[in-house]
Amino acid sequence: MSTCNAYGACEAHADLTPMRIERRALRADDVAIVIDYCGICHSDAHAVHNDWGSTVYPCVPGHEIVGRVSAVGPRVTRFKPGDRVAVGCLVDSCQTCPSCEDGQQQNCTQGPTATYNGRDRHTRETTLGGYSESIVVREEFVLRVPAALDMRYAGPLLCAGITVWTPLRRYGVGAGSRVAVVGLGGLGHMAVKLAVALGAQVTVITTSASKADDARALGASDVLLSKDPKAMQAAASRFDFILDTIPTKHNVNPYLMLLGRNGVLVLVGALEPLEAVHGALLVMNNRSITGSLIGGLPATQELLDFCAEHNVLPDCEIVDVHGINAAFRRMQANDVKYRFVIDMASLRDVKVD
Amino acid sequence: MSTCNAYGACEAHADLTPMRIERRALRADDVAIVIDYCGICHSDAHAVHNDWGSTVYPCVPGHEIVGRVSAVGPRVTRFKPGDRVAVGCLVDSCQTCPSCEDGQQQNCTQGPTATYNGRDRHTRETTLGGYSESIVVREEFVLRVPAALDMRYAGPLLCAGITVWTPLRRYGVGAGSRVAVVGLGGLGHMAVKLAVALGAQVTVITTSASKADDARALGASDVLLSKDPKAMQAAASRFDFILDTIPTKHNVNPYLMLLGRNGVLVLVGALEPLEAVHGALLVMNNRSITGSLIGGLPATQELLDFCAEHNVLPDCEIVDVHGINAAFRRMQANDVKYRFVIDMASLRDVKVD
Repeated sequence: MSTCNAYGACEAHADLTPMRIERRALRADDVAIVIDYCGICHSDAHAVHNDWGSTVYPCVPGHEIVGRVSAVGPRVTRFKPGDRVAVGCLVDSCQTCPSCEDGQQQNCTQGPTATYNGRDRHTRETTLGGYSESIVVREEFVLRVPAALDMRYAGPLLCAGITVWTPLRRYGVGAGSRVAVVGLGGLGHMAVKLAVALGAQVTVITTSASKADDARALGASDVLLSKDPKAMQAAASRFDFILDTIPTKHNVNPYLMLLGRNGVLVLVGALEPLEAVHGALLVMNNRSITGSLIGGLPATQELLDFCAEHNVLPDCEIVDVHGINAAFRRMQANDVKYRFVIDMASLRDVKVD
Repeated sequence: MSTCNAYGACEAHADLTPMRIERRALRADDVAIVIDYCGICHSDAHAVHNDWGSTVYPCVPGHEIVGRVSAVGPRVTRFKPGDRVAVGCLVDSCQTCPSCEDGQQQNCTQGPTATYNGRDRHTRETTLGGYSESIVVREEFVLRVPAALDMRYAGPLLCAGITVWTPLRRYGVGAGSRVAVVGLGGLGHMAVKLAVALGAQVTVITTSASKADDARALGASDVLLSKDPKAMQAAASRFDFILDTIPTKHNVNPYLMLLGRNGVLVLVGALEPLEAVHGALLVMNNRSITGSLIGGLPATQELLDFCAEHNVLPDCEIVDVHGINAAFRRMQANDVKYRFVIDMASLRDVKVD
């Protein structure tokens, strides 16, 4: 057992405060990691606020973790101290169900262990996340950060990035694909960059004309204003693949209209009932709506490698730990382009009573 | 030009009445067909009643047509007089768009020509369907009825059958597939028979315990009562593929729950807004909802050949033309197991004023 500094919430809606937390002693297959950077994800705020009714306090969020190996258990074979590593949304799973065997640990039929507010499969203790100096993680859930990938910006790939990468790959987006991305936030901006890097022609669909320049700067070739009925009508059946990042209840019918034959709309944001989907829009053109949840370990490693090779990085604003609460408030006001990353070095000097 | 007897509607909601109609003179690529049998489809009633607001009167319905070739145009190469043939929901399309080139004429981007209440691509006249003694159809839209297929029962394959066959094939249903069919009407009973013949394990989901014996008689290995919450809960994530034949607005969430990882629910009935689909049910397990519309010519021929080879036939009640109006009323009261077929021989003796 060891202790380290962290930032966490003691109760719903309270500001995050510095605290000391315990990390488990290394098991044989564990990797101990000194955390250098941790991205801030919208779900961190949902957890801290107990929006999903399942938060256990104190809650230390953070599942976009980048750092270096400080120690390894005796059975660890892939990592050694000093290695650049990353940990995403998952730290364990059953490893034996069909989903795990397919490398889709996020769909583990027994339920994967979340990086924070999960339950350790051995001790049943609540897991604590990456807003902390260090973490101990089972080797199979540790990813390698390629030398060419800037550590400061790698964090958001582990949640925002993999969330959009999984469906881009599942549906074979590549050269010639006609892709639309609905919403230009943390997930949307990664989807644009990744789809462009995969060779697709990318349109951003937004309610806000003011985002057109940003969309083009990210690589989009076109911008479609969803509030412009003529433009929407003119784009009917234009796309093969639409990534819908809207995080709340909404009407997908105007987007379904834009799908051509066998086109697919993938929800990655809305975890709630949608407004009434029109059956005829699915029957005509054989359109589909599907959803996608983060991604498995092999796909996440593939993403890190792809981003290193193609120099694709999220646009991040780096804050120190003392700025966490202000960053949370700005994130919830959509005042960030496009993700916050916490520089964890600033946590090492914090004195916690 | 030639005239023949038919049964049609002169105005919305009126009974069908005998009438004389004209059939075009053979074009070079046309096949003239003497109709022996024509299935009655729910959409025939919708058209006759103008439920979709697009009916042109007089309307002669019927798009499950089975008969024999009586004459061919000079450029026809695949058929000769006497051949056993069939015509389904489509009698023409542009033949040049990507959908047509893929043999998906039902998705022709210029709009296919429907067998009735469509518009002839040359004359712009309204097409008249199969509740008639004869029909003239472009060769490419004429199907071959294999010798082993009973002509009396082939009709419903051309709409009910192909509607369920297309998604069964698109999603690779076969040995080992865990399939559920929601609703046991004309479409549902064909889906059960075809999925069983493809080697799948088939469950029928129904509101009515009284349908259990029927479902098993059709080949289903299991029956799930959608009104039994415990049974539904116990079946969570059990299926790979659900064919949803419910023809009206409904709640798909209880069925989505039943899909395992990458599972697909295919709508073939509901052409209207669904009750609110829950986004989380799509995101978890990467479930999809999609729709499917009848099928293309190659798939329809494949279905006829498959049914001949595997001796799969719809359960039909055969009526003569004088029973059309009674059959319509019984169909709309769901009082048929499972499709009506009109014996068109009975139309030849009708005297029309």
